[in-house]
Amino acid sequence: MSDRHDTIRAIEWRDDRLYLLDQRLLPHRLEYLACGTAPAVAEAIRKMVVRGAPAIGIAAAYGVVLAARDAHAVDPAGWRSAMELDLRLLESARPTAVNLKWALERMRAVMQQIEKDPEARLLQEARRIHEEDVRANRRMGELGAELIGERCAVLTHCNAGSLATGGFGTALGVIRAAFSAGRIERVYADETRPWLQGARLTAWELVQDGIPVTLLVEGAAAWLMARGLVEWVIVGADRIAANGDVANKIGTYSAAVNARRHGVKFMVVAPLSTIDPETPDGHSIPIEERPQEEILELAGQPLTAAGATAWNPSFDVTPAELIDAIVTERGVILNPDRKKIGALFQREGDCCNDQE
Amino acid sequence: MSDRHDTIRAIEWRDDRLYLLDQRLLPHRLEYLACGTAPAVAEAIRKMVVRGAPAIGIAAAYGVVLAARDAHAVDPAGWRSAMELDLRLLESARPTAVNLKWALERMRAVMQQIEKDPEARLLQEARRIHEEDVRANRRMGELGAELIGERCAVLTHCNAGSLATGGFGTALGVIRAAFSAGRIERVYADETRPWLQGARLTAWELVQDGIPVTLLVEGAAAWLMARGLVEWVIVGADRIAANGDVANKIGTYSAAVNARRHGVKFMVVAPLSTIDPETPDGHSIPIEERPQEEILELAGQPLTAAGATAWNPSFDVTPAELIDAIVTERGVILNPDRKKIGALFQREGDCCNDQE
Repeated sequence: MSDRHDTIRAIEWRDDRLYLLDQRLLPHRLEYLACGTAPAVAEAIRKMVVRGAPAIGIAAAYGVVLAARDAHAVDPAGWRSAMELDLRLLESARPTAVNLKWALERMRAVMQQIEKDPEARLLQEARRIHEEDVRANRRMGELGAELIGERCAVLTHCNAGSLATGGFGTALGVIRAAFSAGRIERVYADETRPWLQGARLTAWELVQDGIPVTLLVEGAAAWLMARGLVEWVIVGADRIAANGDVANKIGTYSAAVNARRHGVKFMVVAPLSTIDPETPDGHSIPIEERPQEEILELAGQPLTAAGATAWNPSFDVTPAELIDAIVTERGVILNPDRKKIGALFQREGDCCNDQE
Repeated sequence: MSDRHDTIRAIEWRDDRLYLLDQRLLPHRLEYLACGTAPAVAEAIRKMVVRGAPAIGIAAAYGVVLAARDAHAVDPAGWRSAMELDLRLLESARPTAVNLKWALERMRAVMQQIEKDPEARLLQEARRIHEEDVRANRRMGELGAELIGERCAVLTHCNAGSLATGGFGTALGVIRAAFSAGRIERVYADETRPWLQGARLTAWELVQDGIPVTLLVEGAAAWLMARGLVEWVIVGADRIAANGDVANKIGTYSAAVNARRHGVKFMVVAPLSTIDPETPDGHSIPIEERPQEEILELAGQPLTAAGATAWNPSFDVTPAELIDAIVTERGVILNPDRKKIGALFQREGDCCNDQE
């Protein structure tokens, strides 16, 4: 794997603070927002300075470090309860991505083992979560690339790249690995309204890596498939239920329905931290509805007539039956179902730790 | 039918010129562009000052009046051949909407019968085309509304309203009539990238008529259907082939595929002038590909990284098998096929002329 294909870091801990690449400004400005407190991190997650399920989880983990530091400064004996409000702020920043909950639970477990000043130990754990995510992405890249034939074109939706993760990306990790292996010749990217993550983020990442990328409006994805121009749809996930149903950026389900009609394969790439065994199926996944203004306005200017309303669900659910493969760092599940997902969690060890 | 539901006119002939409501500026500015020559009309069609298949046909018919006037001024004896270049300019302005060709053929037929100064007679014919279109829309509104149940919500794509036609609209004509009859409670409108006709034009028309309208990104249409929130998809058409395949704004096909999956009915509303008996099926319909910049930029500003490309087909083809009803002014075709479309053209008379 060329190192060239792993240069972007959206999340950095330095100078005792968390720096988040402000993804709302890309690709025009490359600007990091410094977060010195947990509420600042929660606000950055809520306002989509940082987005993408794994990236949200990692940012929240660092947010716990900041919360603990402040709590310990105020109340060295009772720091755990003093930081509870901050933890809840982080947890409620966005509802759909389960990685947020997952990362906070992992940080909470470590918190229970700490006796004195918690900052160093919690920072170690946050860094570990971050590094494990990058390793998981590398491994998923290898596993996913093996599924793809020769000289393919693929379609991706939203951004599941370095920017959405600790680095390298989930869906874009597979695309990077498959491109390096000569299996992918072109990536079609849905522009992904209303935030245009495809245009602003995915195309920006792929251009930097020298991977040919062609944008299209979401409405054109079905026509792209009808014309026989893509072999795979490859996407990330915000939450995978225990039965294999996948919540991901709004528009994913439409792409999956169309992929099935056209015999195009559909791959979901996500680390184990995105699978929630406690969510039985897609119906149980909370779907965030974001402000109407994201559709009614652009850059603060109205796009439509005063009086029109908008419906703005940020995610949808693709049922497991429409998914050909879920790629995790622990292995690939073909035609996912409850039994196979359960079996994945029963497997011993973590392939990433074993292999890297 | 309340007159209140028919106030917008995108095409007006006055002061010996053609005035086109500049749809690129809506909803922010209500500005008419005056066209005094046929090349100016052709350019306005090409640049989407006026858009929508029936509206393009009507504008081109008035363009013929301007071409004939100029040709007759230059060469009173040989005006027919002197205007040939202008006719070709008009005909090639946009490739997919067959109404353009249809209107020009009708004007050419009249040209052959004229002996002296052609302007008055051609203007009469252009006005007739314009008025017939409005009458056809009214009739289609009645016929289409009868198909819709009680208290429905419907989804429309792009703009097939007053702005896209001589007035009243095709898909929006049905929606207006059904709303007046109490059959529709809410209209969901795809925002329709890249030109945002849904946000800028359809919502603007519906707000003026007091019809509740909710915008959504195209990617959310499948999820809207999965949630059981709409009973019908109602769209216009740019060309209908002899077998019932329908070319319409990019994204229509995706909506049709999803409608079928979810048991949502799919209605196409278009005048006879949109059906082309000489186009055997959807494969034969030329699909315009518009400039990449329409996706790569917004208001002249880049949306994405330099180096990214875009695929920008302006239309797609929905096969007849996915269409539950084609509504024309001569009647409704359920489950359209070649035989039923052929039979429609065999029917005597024109219901609009008969009934109004």
